[in-house]
Amino acid sequence: MENSVLETKQIPVISSEILLAQWQGHRRLTRKMIEAFPEDKLFTYSIGGMRPFAALVIEMLTMAGPGIKGMISGKWDNYSDVEKSFKATTRAELLKLWDEATAQINELFPKITPERFHETVKVFGQYEGPVYWSIFYFIDNEIHHRGQGYVYLRSLGIEPPAFWDRY
Amino acid sequence: MENSVLETKQIPVISSEILLAQWQGHRRLTRKMIEAFPEDKLFTYSIGGMRPFAALVIEMLTMAGPGIKGMISGKWDNYSDVEKSFKATTRAELLKLWDEATAQINELFPKITPERFHETVKVFGQYEGPVYWSIFYFIDNEIHHRGQGYVYLRSLGIEPPAFWDRY
Repeated sequence: MENSVLETKQIPVISSEILLAQWQGHRRLTRKMIEAFPEDKLFTYSIGGMRPFAALVIEMLTMAGPGIKGMISGKWDNYSDVEKSFKATTRAELLKLWDEATAQINELFPKITPERFHETVKVFGQYEGPVYWSIFYFIDNEIHHRGQGYVYLRSLGIEPPAFWDRY
Repeated sequence: MENSVLETKQIPVISSEILLAQWQGHRRLTRKMIEAFPEDKLFTYSIGGMRPFAALVIEMLTMAGPGIKGMISGKWDNYSDVEKSFKATTRAELLKLWDEATAQINELFPKITPERFHETVKVFGQYEGPVYWSIFYFIDNEIHHRGQGYVYLRSLGIEPPAFWDRY
């Protein structure tokens, strides 16, 4: 096995496969959240001037497929342009985009080489850091905004899926 | 370097050091959230019947120090008993507990051996999975509940710290 990508004294504990599995587990939970929202509230409901859950999902989609694609190709489109390319006005359309991204991530993620994980990239031409850092950012940003969705659902009197339900 | 803890075909990309740095970055942001809440709202404010932010912080503290301690020792106290041991009625007390946990994590985390990351444990005698999975759970649970805190702050008309602000 090749692990020279980490600094000499660092001990690798998490593989690319584990990271992908973690993310897809979270993505399965986020998909359940999309299903848990009443369809009208998905696109309109807001607290404190924050974006509706569908808009947060579009943000997740913008980072996910195009983000991993950029990690491999090194080519980045403008973030706003990419975000505008994801269009959904119904739950079914949103779920379709979600499932397409799931397949795209499963296909592309294994192509990120171990060396690449530790190279510095400028994600969407804007956010500079190691590839692994940006991948954590994509995953963590999804968890963060999904947590926001939990409050939306609870305030609507709807019980969200359990946080550990990643199946 | 030793990486036999991963299955033969797996490619290690994340070290224990990176994982610790990621977590402590998130913990710095959570600390800023504790500081951003008006003191009374920190302990009382709720949306949709959910717990106040201080109670969520106590949950994070229960998992953090005692969680990592258990990973090393293999010994677990009852979750509810550990949770009750964290008492704070002011922001200053909560921040003191937070900072103590920060030091404890920095001391103990490096003692988790590479092999240990991949052993199965029953966290607090209840939640079974590989050590790395539970560590991701602690971090992700913090991000999740902190996201909930962002909605609380926004609904109070307060701008939360930026999600990328981990310094």
